[in-house]
Amino acid sequence: MTLNLTKKIIQKHLVSGKLIPGEEIEIKIDQTLTQDATGTMAYLQFESIGLDKVQTDLSVSYVDHNTIQMGFRNPDDHQYLRTVAAKYGLIFSPPGTGICHQLHLENFAKPGSTLIGSDSHTPTAGGIGALAMGAGGLSVALAMAGEPYTITMPKIVRVYLTGKLKGFASAKDIILFLLKKFTVKGGVGKIFEYTGPGLKSLSVPERATITNMGAELGLTTSIFPSDENTRRFLKAMGREDDFIELGPDPNAEYDEEVEIDLSSIEPLAATPHMPDKVKPIRELAGLKVDQVAIGSCTNSSYLDLKSVALILKNKKINPETDLLIAPGSKQVLKMLLDENLLWPILNAGGRLLECACGPCIGMGGSPPSKGISVRTFNRNFEGRSGTQDAKIYLTSPITAAFAALEGKFTDPCTWEEKINFKEISLPLKTPSIKHLFIFPPENQAEVRIRRGPNIVPLKSFSPLPENLELPVLIKVGDNITTDHILPAGPQITALRSNIPAISEYIYSRVDKEFVQRAKQHKQGIIIGGENYGQGSSREHAALAPRYLGVRVVLAKSFARIHRANLINFGILPLIFVDPKDYDKIELEQILSLNLKQLSCGQKMCIQIKDFCITVTNDLTTKELNIIKEGGLLNFVRNKRK
Amino acid sequence: MTLNLTKKIIQKHLVSGKLIPGEEIEIKIDQTLTQDATGTMAYLQFESIGLDKVQTDLSVSYVDHNTIQMGFRNPDDHQYLRTVAAKYGLIFSPPGTGICHQLHLENFAKPGSTLIGSDSHTPTAGGIGALAMGAGGLSVALAMAGEPYTITMPKIVRVYLTGKLKGFASAKDIILFLLKKFTVKGGVGKIFEYTGPGLKSLSVPERATITNMGAELGLTTSIFPSDENTRRFLKAMGREDDFIELGPDPNAEYDEEVEIDLSSIEPLAATPHMPDKVKPIRELAGLKVDQVAIGSCTNSSYLDLKSVALILKNKKINPETDLLIAPGSKQVLKMLLDENLLWPILNAGGRLLECACGPCIGMGGSPPSKGISVRTFNRNFEGRSGTQDAKIYLTSPITAAFAALEGKFTDPCTWEEKINFKEISLPLKTPSIKHLFIFPPENQAEVRIRRGPNIVPLKSFSPLPENLELPVLIKVGDNITTDHILPAGPQITALRSNIPAISEYIYSRVDKEFVQRAKQHKQGIIIGGENYGQGSSREHAALAPRYLGVRVVLAKSFARIHRANLINFGILPLIFVDPKDYDKIELEQILSLNLKQLSCGQKMCIQIKDFCITVTNDLTTKELNIIKEGGLLNFVRNKRK
Repeated sequence: MTLNLTKKIIQKHLVSGKLIPGEEIEIKIDQTLTQDATGTMAYLQFESIGLDKVQTDLSVSYVDHNTIQMGFRNPDDHQYLRTVAAKYGLIFSPPGTGICHQLHLENFAKPGSTLIGSDSHTPTAGGIGALAMGAGGLSVALAMAGEPYTITMPKIVRVYLTGKLKGFASAKDIILFLLKKFTVKGGVGKIFEYTGPGLKSLSVPERATITNMGAELGLTTSIFPSDENTRRFLKAMGREDDFIELGPDPNAEYDEEVEIDLSSIEPLAATPHMPDKVKPIRELAGLKVDQVAIGSCTNSSYLDLKSVALILKNKKINPETDLLIAPGSKQVLKMLLDENLLWPILNAGGRLLECACGPCIGMGGSPPSKGISVRTFNRNFEGRSGTQDAKIYLTSPITAAFAALEGKFTDPCTWEEKINFKEISLPLKTPSIKHLFIFPPENQAEVRIRRGPNIVPLKSFSPLPENLELPVLIKVGDNITTDHILPAGPQITALRSNIPAISEYIYSRVDKEFVQRAKQHKQGIIIGGENYGQGSSREHAALAPRYLGVRVVLAKSFARIHRANLINFGILPLIFVDPKDYDKIELEQILSLNLKQLSCGQKMCIQIKDFCITVTNDLTTKELNIIKEGGLLNFVRNKRK
Repeated sequence: MTLNLTKKIIQKHLVSGKLIPGEEIEIKIDQTLTQDATGTMAYLQFESIGLDKVQTDLSVSYVDHNTIQMGFRNPDDHQYLRTVAAKYGLIFSPPGTGICHQLHLENFAKPGSTLIGSDSHTPTAGGIGALAMGAGGLSVALAMAGEPYTITMPKIVRVYLTGKLKGFASAKDIILFLLKKFTVKGGVGKIFEYTGPGLKSLSVPERATITNMGAELGLTTSIFPSDENTRRFLKAMGREDDFIELGPDPNAEYDEEVEIDLSSIEPLAATPHMPDKVKPIRELAGLKVDQVAIGSCTNSSYLDLKSVALILKNKKINPETDLLIAPGSKQVLKMLLDENLLWPILNAGGRLLECACGPCIGMGGSPPSKGISVRTFNRNFEGRSGTQDAKIYLTSPITAAFAALEGKFTDPCTWEEKINFKEISLPLKTPSIKHLFIFPPENQAEVRIRRGPNIVPLKSFSPLPENLELPVLIKVGDNITTDHILPAGPQITALRSNIPAISEYIYSRVDKEFVQRAKQHKQGIIIGGENYGQGSSREHAALAPRYLGVRVVLAKSFARIHRANLINFGILPLIFVDPKDYDKIELEQILSLNLKQLSCGQKMCIQIKDFCITVTNDLTTKELNIIKEGGLLNFVRNKRK
């Protein structure tokens, strides 16, 4: 049987299930990663399972989200994460070392391995041929405990690349092109597997930019084969031993196919406020730019920053434009230093931020009021920058650097052509920063875990009752993101290990009375539209609503990771059979659910006043049992009893 | 007549008054500087005077306090400051260029000139032989308008330095030694003028560390002569033309004298929570250190950071200790880059922050709960780090670097002696970063000032009534700092151009009900102890209480800058004749004041219930008139009518 690359890796890691799209499968996980914003909770959950060591080949705890440290909470989290890593045999990456996905690609990701991470951009490692998926922190905790990871087998889409990028187009423009073509919902339930003659011209960091923003397409993940470019990258990283050649079998079958001619792609931007609202840069020419921010897990590699440095060299940015740069890792920074490429950026007026996520998650770097900010990041959701009325454009580093110089968007046909960006490549050998990670000590048992006052143990949840009378706590529209449900930003994410405290911010930017209403009713239901819960993987967007008494979300459709998070915390995700019924439901109406007969995929009736609407679910037997038992932690504990 | 250096400079700039300690004098101001936290308000005030250009030789607007940009307010302030500078002929230093005092020393400060700045560490420029004083933003606004600056003629203290530093002692240890000797109140009403054979061994950056923390002694300012070391520094900065030789006349007279033998000084630390609680490092040996932070206007020079880099080179910091480094300017950073000295810091595990004040003002970098943080900064007030229960130790960069390596304080006699710190000196020529400042354009008149929604015009205050019935709104103890009155930190300082909003935080860390109480009573009095209002110069600690209705502060004694700020905003500073009367006053008692006969230095009676206490004031005629007219802006406007 001829297999595509994705199926090959899944087959090798399959614990249960069949490789048929829509079927539930369980796969063994080789590696896990966490970042600090979701990690503290993942480790509290791992601790509650009671093992004395992680069961994976490799697990890494990165600190990259909350590195600014306004008050005790962030540094307390760092202390907790450092000590819990030492205790349970994880590698710890201290704040300032870099962004998890960039660091993981450089140091740990392996072709053919499976990786889950409590961050939605974990698919970045697909650029090196790993099967890498974003997951809820709880799933990561369970993977660390040796439990397989459960997903619905996605459709595998062959993305056949032909041609070569030309002019000023770069990897970022490829993924923006795909976002324009497929929209932020276009990838739901799918994996993009890249093939074709166009692969050759794309290095691993460029591939990683593309797989990174596969998250914005709603994909389960994206993957590139492991080929000579992969070997070159791993060799440069001093890890040629991790290389294996890996690709689809000849004539492998795919569920869907699409062909992209790279030479047809021009510099693009995602315009406010969604990554799929993509326009050519030439159409934006003349638009004044107040701020440019370069970095994030999408575009903070050596190749990205070298391009920027060469554009800025011996020049000065527009005095009315602010330029922020955050390298993806200390390795990237070291490589810039080795080639004297940091000073050209600073000397042009650029501001160097710590190697971390920074402005991408609203952690500093907010634009001015009504400001236009051009960012090399992956998300431009409204308000995510920290400035509610700012307008964010997502572009490549090359486009961003030219915008900083000119203080406005300009037509790429006017850009200086002296630099041949295609010729920029990784050195054959790069400086290692592995000694900056903290590897677990010999005396793990003696490590004392340091817990600040903001790290609050998780309350256990009750099983799903058979009858529920649920008031509608909020009714929201299509494409609600987890940023809508629980905004990011320093104040809120600082509370991520303190569920009672963080719950106060649920839907705070959408409906200021939501929390009060939930508390008053003690329990309730949320009514959602299409693609409910897209965006960041933050599990608190499910955990905190559950804490506030949300037992059911009824929506037209769900985003994959958030759906899994809802199930993990015992919230029942129900789907309208007729989407038009959405219009019949009003705020604070009481919905009566009889769940005694609840079973997989079956239609059921919800009573509202004097009428009834039909809903269904797409739950597997296991998922249903998890919800009935009150969430995955209860389920795993009950199983191990 | 033989004059000391201070009197020479004052004499040359004297507008009115006599050089007799305690007399009010007015002096012409050559240069002003502001930072962003106090600057926005200073420029709003300057604008309200109605001139079309600043009247000084040179005025610079620096952005160094709020550079993190959590939300729209900080970047809006930066836009306002940039455009207002262009409009009125100031030099603008964008965020990330560096810390105001470091940059001013490197680029603009001149021996023999007068400088006031809306930051309490403006005396840093005394290291180059300038007469530099911290002042309220309003005083800076008036100086920019060409008004002379009014001070009470201080006593001039000759600090006669003999010997040379030895071992690991450095400039920071000299000023810590003086703080131990004189306490935080020891310098009130005085200027320290450094002389003696010990001068020769101190470079300008070392002198600047000493003059910088003269602010913590309560000094009006400190000053070093301009000698060969000054010439060398200015030449290295490419500004030999700014050099003039300047020192006291032979046999000049001083009001007081003190002699310090530099060779007797050992490495020291200010222990929690006051800069004068100084102990030898050897007595602290063994104390675990959670965090080390190097930078701030006190110790972020090339010499400081080179010492640190040499200590850390080819080593790794303790894995349980977090190390944060913020260079003082991009020039410092460039010099480190030129000598490959940045990487040794990063490679040891250090974290590079933007060239700005950063953790020194609680802008990020908070320590963990109950954490011990060793900082090269100038203030260790409780809670200022952003972590209420953290303990801050102030040390030299050398001491801090060894603490980072070991993860604890160690006895200096155990420190590695390979590096000869005394041999570290500025190169003969340094790289200029002058092109990073934004100089005013030709078309000033056409510049449009950009005002974000948080920049709210100042409400004008009413004159002082003749009779006041004032409830006691709060009663506080000795050494209350402006951090107690109005805490720093990102949330609060972001509101500095919005008085109604920032007023909500007055005394918020001391008494959560203060604001409510003030609003309820509409007006009131504050009862203070000794040295009321020491610390940071922030004028909002006077302006916002005035907005809340505070008309009088009655204290045992006042810190100089805060006293001036109270007067500037029309708050009457009264002094207990008998400090024991302090004990007789209780919260919310009503104090009756008849101010009809109020005159300079005269005793008066305040009626409380059935008894009476005697108070006085140390106001000059001009100060009294300012208060009576409702503050300095009213006074200047009335004068110009």
